[in-house]
Amino acid sequence: MNFKTLEWQGGIDGTLELLDQRKLPAVTEMLQIKTIPQLYEAIKTLAVRGAPAIGVAAAYGLGLALQDTDQSVGLRAALAHLDSAAAELARSRPTAVNLTWALKRVQKCARVFIEDNPSASVTDFREDVLDQAHTICREDQKMCREIGLNGQKLITPGSAIITHCNAGALATAGQGTALSPLYEAHAAGTPFTVYVDETRPLLQGARLTAWELNQQNIPVTLICDNMAASLMAEGKITAVITGADRIAANGDTANKIGTLNLALLAYHFGIPFYIAAPSSTFDIDTPMGEKIVIEQRDPAEVKCILDRAVSPATICAYNPAFDLTPAKYITAMITEKGIIEKPNKSTIAEHLAQ
Amino acid sequence: MNFKTLEWQGGIDGTLELLDQRKLPAVTEMLQIKTIPQLYEAIKTLAVRGAPAIGVAAAYGLGLALQDTDQSVGLRAALAHLDSAAAELARSRPTAVNLTWALKRVQKCARVFIEDNPSASVTDFREDVLDQAHTICREDQKMCREIGLNGQKLITPGSAIITHCNAGALATAGQGTALSPLYEAHAAGTPFTVYVDETRPLLQGARLTAWELNQQNIPVTLICDNMAASLMAEGKITAVITGADRIAANGDTANKIGTLNLALLAYHFGIPFYIAAPSSTFDIDTPMGEKIVIEQRDPAEVKCILDRAVSPATICAYNPAFDLTPAKYITAMITEKGIIEKPNKSTIAEHLAQ
Repeated sequence: MNFKTLEWQGGIDGTLELLDQRKLPAVTEMLQIKTIPQLYEAIKTLAVRGAPAIGVAAAYGLGLALQDTDQSVGLRAALAHLDSAAAELARSRPTAVNLTWALKRVQKCARVFIEDNPSASVTDFREDVLDQAHTICREDQKMCREIGLNGQKLITPGSAIITHCNAGALATAGQGTALSPLYEAHAAGTPFTVYVDETRPLLQGARLTAWELNQQNIPVTLICDNMAASLMAEGKITAVITGADRIAANGDTANKIGTLNLALLAYHFGIPFYIAAPSSTFDIDTPMGEKIVIEQRDPAEVKCILDRAVSPATICAYNPAFDLTPAKYITAMITEKGIIEKPNKSTIAEHLAQ
Repeated sequence: MNFKTLEWQGGIDGTLELLDQRKLPAVTEMLQIKTIPQLYEAIKTLAVRGAPAIGVAAAYGLGLALQDTDQSVGLRAALAHLDSAAAELARSRPTAVNLTWALKRVQKCARVFIEDNPSASVTDFREDVLDQAHTICREDQKMCREIGLNGQKLITPGSAIITHCNAGALATAGQGTALSPLYEAHAAGTPFTVYVDETRPLLQGARLTAWELNQQNIPVTLICDNMAASLMAEGKITAVITGADRIAANGDTANKIGTLNLALLAYHFGIPFYIAAPSSTFDIDTPMGEKIVIEQRDPAEVKCILDRAVSPATICAYNPAFDLTPAKYITAMITEKGIIEKPNKSTIAEHLAQ
């Protein structure tokens, strides 16, 4: 990647740099985050977005939280300060699973550190917290890379891929999930093209995916979400790859609204449809898609584009954040562990047990 | 309708009033058109759009063309003036079939009038030209109404319809084509709801269809074009109705990009998919859809929304104006003559011969 979605600069007194995604694609600007309120605002307003990226940013946030801690207060007071910062950050986007997961992981490690090192200095404690954040970041990067290596073989010379929303480097600390196989194939010299669904209502495809692929010199053609059938009918598409927000035990997949559209069209035209996601996205406690609750968002996102009204003020709008793609329409799933062909309850359980 | 898309006010020295569709839905304003350059600009910049509406507006334009004609010049000079105005108007949107059709019809009638009435006054001639425009307007209104009456039976209590783009009153001089059955059903007291595809890239659904249905107090829910599959999967949709730009002899239909998406999804879910269009939309010289040339439009329409860039400047975009829906996915077609069940070469030929 020739850009960084987020990066810690310096040691324990360092700064969290975040690429300000609110300003893309017009402006490429790194936010310098030094305080919890600044990070809270950045997450809340989508300067940083994508579940893995939010998790990593929040973990680094707990490093920031202790920068103004008096060195003489003692470990227990430092821990209390850390917990308070974690509680504040957790409120920034309450539904993001990775956010609370990352915060809890750092908090748990901090407790273990204090139990194991009761006479350590606050500086030692801060070093440990920052190390945990670095570990979470590196794990995310490794997961992305492995998804890419596993999925790379699905991209062959001349492939023409449709992707939807943004499940790329901008959504992670690494090279993304759905886009990672494309980056690996590109690095290996495989020629292919990508059609990017603009992804209404929030236009993550047009604003973010098109930008990041273009940054890496991968040929990108932007399309409106209603153009996929036309391209498929003309024989121009060889595969569809998207990310996933949650995958039920039977393989039914919740992902950005519009994913089901693509999956059914791909099925109709006999085009493979792939989901790329880390194994942490599987929710084996949810037996099937019907049990996944779909978030309904503000109708204003549909009725307005870039804050300008495009429809009469008094009408209704429907705005589900996600849709559910039944497993039968998913040709294969790509995780950091490998590929699940024909995903179903047993193939998924077997894959996750590896 | 509680609004007029276009209306001639006054006699031969009157004014063509056009609802300025560039300003909808924010502002409802009638343009006062008095000259050919004003009308040319209004058609070119989509103040008036929709093939039937453009045809009627152009016919009235020839009424305007003769308003500054010296009464003493004689019929031949008046006819030359009319022809010159027709040539100018025809250049405003060269691909609109109804535009040239309406202009040629008025020009032909003007010639017949002069042949039949060689000693008539220029005023008589102008009366005849304006009468022709009024006739074209009335025929369009009648065609719309008949499509509505024929299609009304397809809307039953509790129906939930998806429509795409704008094939409504704003696209005609009457109550529209695809929306006309909805207006008739509403007038008859049938309760139903309409989901309106926003219809990227130019948002005719959000800006125009939502506005005109709302004006008539028909419940409207705006959706992004990628949400149809989700609604259908939830069992919320009972039918899809769209207009058509051109229908081949075998029933393959060219319509606004995104129509094929909807037709294939409806087919998948076993939901009826209807096309409503006047019989003039059938192009029996074109045997099948593959022979219809699809207009490719400016990529800027995809890369920008309401004139604001939403994607990187250097990427490509795909922007076909229409897509092709094979006849096999069309449950029925509604014309002013009746309903064509299972449209194919023979059912269409039989219907058009009525």
